[in-house]
Amino acid sequence: MRVALGVSYRGTAYKGWQSQPGGGTVQDALEAALGQFAAQPIRTICAGRTDTGVHGLNQVVHFDTPVDREPFSWVRGTNRYLPPDIAVQWSAFPGDDFHARNWARGRRYFYLLLESNVRPAIEQGAVGWTFRPLDGDAMRDAAARLIGEHDFSSFRSAECQAASPIKQLRRIDIQRRGAYWRFEFDASAFLHHMIRNLMGCLIAVGSGNRPASWMDEVLAARSRDAAAPTFSPDGLYFVGPYYDPHLQLPERTAAMDWLP
Amino acid sequence: MRVALGVSYRGTAYKGWQSQPGGGTVQDALEAALGQFAAQPIRTICAGRTDTGVHGLNQVVHFDTPVDREPFSWVRGTNRYLPPDIAVQWSAFPGDDFHARNWARGRRYFYLLLESNVRPAIEQGAVGWTFRPLDGDAMRDAAARLIGEHDFSSFRSAECQAASPIKQLRRIDIQRRGAYWRFEFDASAFLHHMIRNLMGCLIAVGSGNRPASWMDEVLAARSRDAAAPTFSPDGLYFVGPYYDPHLQLPERTAAMDWLP
Repeated sequence: MRVALGVSYRGTAYKGWQSQPGGGTVQDALEAALGQFAAQPIRTICAGRTDTGVHGLNQVVHFDTPVDREPFSWVRGTNRYLPPDIAVQWSAFPGDDFHARNWARGRRYFYLLLESNVRPAIEQGAVGWTFRPLDGDAMRDAAARLIGEHDFSSFRSAECQAASPIKQLRRIDIQRRGAYWRFEFDASAFLHHMIRNLMGCLIAVGSGNRPASWMDEVLAARSRDAAAPTFSPDGLYFVGPYYDPHLQLPERTAAMDWLP
Repeated sequence: MRVALGVSYRGTAYKGWQSQPGGGTVQDALEAALGQFAAQPIRTICAGRTDTGVHGLNQVVHFDTPVDREPFSWVRGTNRYLPPDIAVQWSAFPGDDFHARNWARGRRYFYLLLESNVRPAIEQGAVGWTFRPLDGDAMRDAAARLIGEHDFSSFRSAECQAASPIKQLRRIDIQRRGAYWRFEFDASAFLHHMIRNLMGCLIAVGSGNRPASWMDEVLAARSRDAAAPTFSPDGLYFVGPYYDPHLQLPERTAAMDWLP
């Protein structure tokens, strides 16, 4: 039987999603908990790997198992063995050919940024920070130049394993909520470090270091050297993938009501 | 010169506010940082001591020092020596007779509670949790019975050092925001564990274990045995004290925009 799970996690204490020989990743913790609950090894495939320090709100994984349980048993049973900063939110049986990565029609992320002359404290690790005042209209102008299908090589890290640097960026929405800015991203898929590199450039424009039109130059250069430095992972959240609506997989988790 | 500071902190890693011989409290961390910046020992007095695991949004402290600095120097300079989960938000010189505790006209707290069949993950340590559905109207009915000047002995821990159990409870406001409930409390002052004990009782009413009228009995009993068990500290935030408006001390900090 093929099982799909939605998983939330605070990435601060983990070396990213993907399993490593030494452990310490979210996938390692999830597979260990699934293995304990199912009493046999389980290997998962995820919708989108996240980096060290990046958080997940509705990461989706699938796996195959001969173990037969009610859907909510997979939630409750696995959570018993997970550390307190990771929790399975839902489970579903979407059919034996469902594939968490290949079937995803796109992915959503957001980035939360504190604009303040004082650094974060209660929300540390969960938010990026800039002490420079930001111009929302300038950032929106810069962001609009990125929408569509482009070669995003300028925003791709050297370690990126994607087959192609060409992705379709569908939406960037930038809103201010009190002292915080929220940057929402929706794309077919994202390259390694792509959003953190986009954030570095958007903040360079927002703080007046570069004009909005500079974003055209960065995009056209297709070279990492053209862009701003990679911004902090602290404020980055993988909202989750989205699939054919007929699958009826949940796209919201409780924690989405928590953040500004 | 008498200096006042507003301080935010995530309480999860600390043994409460008040200095202890072995260290490990928020006051210990703050006084160590102030001492490093001022290059001489500084002892602080706070507006309201918080318990282990309880968070502060605008805790106010005062201290006397011969060191002469601009107000924002106290913020920036002290933050350099503070751990990442504590940050001074503002400083002011409200006069040599200002007293952070004695001059406070009241204190505000709120409690954030997740109602979900799945435990918290990304917000763990920052929120209380109940898996039982809550009835907001029943809780509001119960809360209304507590407003006014009362003997709150039923909600007071055995270790409470307050001179009198009689406090004026001015307001309890209960709102739902998505999967989260926010309980706001405003009183002249609070007894030790008072809000966590109030929360235990409000949740007993909200989940249907007790009728709203039970709160009258608990209050009248003036005995800790009459009330529900002390609820988790995780979702409790000291919003801060308030003073005579003429002092013009800030009552808001950026982190208040962070939480639901």
